[in-house]
Amino acid sequence: MSDYSGYNFVGNTRSANGNVILKSRNAFTNLELPSSFYQATNDEIDSACQLAASAFPIFNKLSASRRAEFLNKIADELDGLSNDFFDLVRQETALDEARIKGECGRTSNQMRLFADLLIRGDFYDVRIDTAIPDRSPVPKVDIRQCRMGVGPVAVFGASNFPLAFSTAGGDTASALAAGCPVIFKAHSGHMETAEKVAIAILRAAEQTSMPDGVFSMIFGAGVGERLVKHSDIKAVGFTGSLSGGKAISDMAASRPNPIPVFAEMSSINPVILLPQALATRRHKIATELSDSITLGVGQFCTNPGLIIGVSSPQFSDFISKVTDEISLKQSKTMLNSGALANYKKGCEKLENHPQINMLASSESADNKATAYLYQAPADLLLSGNELLQEEIFGPASIVIEVNDMAQLTACLNAMHGQLTATLIGEEEELNDSVELLSILENLAGRVLINGYPTGVEVCDAMVHGGPFPATSDSRGTSVGSLAIDRFLRPICFQNYPDSLLPDALKNNNPLGILRLVNGVKTTSLIQNNLKVAR
Amino acid sequence: MSDYSGYNFVGNTRSANGNVILKSRNAFTNLELPSSFYQATNDEIDSACQLAASAFPIFNKLSASRRAEFLNKIADELDGLSNDFFDLVRQETALDEARIKGECGRTSNQMRLFADLLIRGDFYDVRIDTAIPDRSPVPKVDIRQCRMGVGPVAVFGASNFPLAFSTAGGDTASALAAGCPVIFKAHSGHMETAEKVAIAILRAAEQTSMPDGVFSMIFGAGVGERLVKHSDIKAVGFTGSLSGGKAISDMAASRPNPIPVFAEMSSINPVILLPQALATRRHKIATELSDSITLGVGQFCTNPGLIIGVSSPQFSDFISKVTDEISLKQSKTMLNSGALANYKKGCEKLENHPQINMLASSESADNKATAYLYQAPADLLLSGNELLQEEIFGPASIVIEVNDMAQLTACLNAMHGQLTATLIGEEEELNDSVELLSILENLAGRVLINGYPTGVEVCDAMVHGGPFPATSDSRGTSVGSLAIDRFLRPICFQNYPDSLLPDALKNNNPLGILRLVNGVKTTSLIQNNLKVAR
Repeated sequence: MSDYSGYNFVGNTRSANGNVILKSRNAFTNLELPSSFYQATNDEIDSACQLAASAFPIFNKLSASRRAEFLNKIADELDGLSNDFFDLVRQETALDEARIKGECGRTSNQMRLFADLLIRGDFYDVRIDTAIPDRSPVPKVDIRQCRMGVGPVAVFGASNFPLAFSTAGGDTASALAAGCPVIFKAHSGHMETAEKVAIAILRAAEQTSMPDGVFSMIFGAGVGERLVKHSDIKAVGFTGSLSGGKAISDMAASRPNPIPVFAEMSSINPVILLPQALATRRHKIATELSDSITLGVGQFCTNPGLIIGVSSPQFSDFISKVTDEISLKQSKTMLNSGALANYKKGCEKLENHPQINMLASSESADNKATAYLYQAPADLLLSGNELLQEEIFGPASIVIEVNDMAQLTACLNAMHGQLTATLIGEEEELNDSVELLSILENLAGRVLINGYPTGVEVCDAMVHGGPFPATSDSRGTSVGSLAIDRFLRPICFQNYPDSLLPDALKNNNPLGILRLVNGVKTTSLIQNNLKVAR
Repeated sequence: MSDYSGYNFVGNTRSANGNVILKSRNAFTNLELPSSFYQATNDEIDSACQLAASAFPIFNKLSASRRAEFLNKIADELDGLSNDFFDLVRQETALDEARIKGECGRTSNQMRLFADLLIRGDFYDVRIDTAIPDRSPVPKVDIRQCRMGVGPVAVFGASNFPLAFSTAGGDTASALAAGCPVIFKAHSGHMETAEKVAIAILRAAEQTSMPDGVFSMIFGAGVGERLVKHSDIKAVGFTGSLSGGKAISDMAASRPNPIPVFAEMSSINPVILLPQALATRRHKIATELSDSITLGVGQFCTNPGLIIGVSSPQFSDFISKVTDEISLKQSKTMLNSGALANYKKGCEKLENHPQINMLASSESADNKATAYLYQAPADLLLSGNELLQEEIFGPASIVIEVNDMAQLTACLNAMHGQLTATLIGEEEELNDSVELLSILENLAGRVLINGYPTGVEVCDAMVHGGPFPATSDSRGTSVGSLAIDRFLRPICFQNYPDSLLPDALKNNNPLGILRLVNGVKTTSLIQNNLKVAR
């Protein structure tokens, strides 16, 4: 396929009908890389959507085990990517090799998690209420329910995870698992990476005989709007900025037939330090927290952007230790020049505010991100100042010293929704923190005790979501197996002959899955014409 | 509480600070009923929202069994409503006594269904991934997830179910079950009914010691906007018109912090007749379908508004039988004069269209709804004419005769999303209808074979939802136990000491519920500090 380098993926066909040429850049030098990418034309976008719509009924009706085969094959293809590929990712993103390899493994494991989920079958959420023909005053008919894909999904990947939140990332994996064809809008920050991954996905699709249109990928700036507004698109997954996520949500809501959007957008991930923990291990916490702030050049949605503690000599000592630690950090190259420019702009806004002080900055170097620690008064947060609530994407964090626990609570109540909230404390004070934890649980999708929010485990129990503006819908997650729920809808089959029911709903339970039958979870088969009283 | 007749319910306090007086009307005479209702003031709306926000953390943290107690008590209170109450409902809605009593029983059973669900505990959707401290390269921490209420919910009830889709209806029941306080906007069509039911709910809340603010009810026209836009409201449930649902969805999306809306809005519920069924039992189907069209004066969201069959002598004979049946129906009083006016307007639009013919009309009587049968050419639907896709709320239906199965498929593909789609056929032709069923399953939330869409069973397997414009989000339902999902969000607890976890997540599984532990569904307890390899 190398002849088609830079072409869009309109299903299985490479296409370059447009004349807008895009270039990826070397993240270290900001110089253009040699490959050229062709911005998708309106016709190409429409064709990808139509192909996805044609593929949907076929793909959606495939057995879950066939879709699992596809996902596992994608995982195999990702695992087969070579060092050349990792070098290319590094060129485009400046991420280090270990991180890239780790992220690639995470991405293939994520595909396998969804394959396992498909085999397990609980995503169907089968509910069966059998008939009661002699019920009075009216007979009860046989009613069965399972969940199926919503239809073709448009996915917008993130800059900061060129693999795990991108072409073959969690949104793509969960949508494909749900039976939904995916049209992926390649991120302009890593188009070469995206192309290689798309080729891997399509190779897996071919090897497992998936229908043409099950996956497409388009390049370009501004092509997202036509995609989101296309009548064949039935849901959107997005990871990125608040402004980008809001724009896409607005587009989706203003369609003649509005569709759901799950946008993961903005979080400052508060970390709350309790007094006893500060008394016993403040230097250790300071070191660990500084590492979390600067990990991956701070380019994580879960980067701890706000540190809150009650005023005390111990908290002051903790702050001075964090100050020292941040000062000693190395400046590093960010994902791209745009990320660096945005980071600088965000930090400047803090620096220009008369009530915000800079406590620490790491060494500065041209074209690299300096790590910063700032301090702001609690009153500024309590007065509703939005500056302290804006995510600064990069290695910066703000300390807030509160007078007492009442002011701490007030600060938390003044905050917008978050992906994570963290409480650091000793056993005794934690046991006294039930109300505080309750506030954090209402604030965030994930609450951590004695940990750091960076590092998002891909597993069944993960929630990478949270109230607005963390995401556009607090009922979803973009990481972990629950992510599939965003792209499924329940369908009710009333009075169907057994042979016409999906396998998940058939009397003899051919998939052997756990089902809710007349209010009881069971793997048992259902006797034909069984009349079960509820 | 009779002294406070017509006052708003601001939590447990009756309040009438406004000076806009509203009157309910006798549905038969359109004359004002004696009671006066006080439109809620902005302050009263705000107070109800603030009370709900204060009640939320308490109510949300209550054990599920305590909330079940509350729901069961509401059911008891509803069951205790007397004939005086039924007379009042009849005055306000013109529904007949049997229907009102049936609906009241359905409403209390619905409360009990959610109480059962709370006891069953699967709504928590517990997922636990235990720690693997020695995992390389990084240890795996303990991560647990369950679902909790999203926060206070605003509910807008329907005119056509003054009990089952109203004050104590499915949206209220599912929101309360989820741990969400409810603020109910009373429907102007049955304010006296609403008041009595609200008193029943608050009596149950008092008897089961629920927090003040767990339920409020406001009266008024135009008070919905302030409610939907109030920052303390976290989700909306709505049943009503397309224009109303869209307006509320737009308000919710334009908030500084957008919130999810589940609006059940508009459906014409196509019924498709296959040739063999017409050959063998066309008169029986005609009679049953005519009954379904006119049941409850056609005032059901699931009323069959479109009848499609392939042109044949048998289909012609079927049409003439339906024509006869509809002609013989009695005209009946609708819910209110507004409903009748809208129905007449909808029918006039059809009658004024040059390509639409009226086949039958029942006897006409002043201030009553005439039943109608119309016929429209398939080309009109295929040309994208919106008139045929608009729900006409009342006892009218449109027949479309198609040339062949290909045109039938084209018609279905041209249709908007539906609550239901029905296929009537004999065994052999049904077995040949796999593709047709697949189209219907993508079109609607519920697909029926050899049944009629009116009559919505309240059970675990029901879906009363569907793609837009049937609802605003095809992933939800407003009838059946799955309705609770709309008001729950997942929360992830990372590295929590066992004592601080919700009971649903504790090691020893005190609720005895089925949980997903390291990828396996089990009721087993988790050994403390268990290190389980996945």
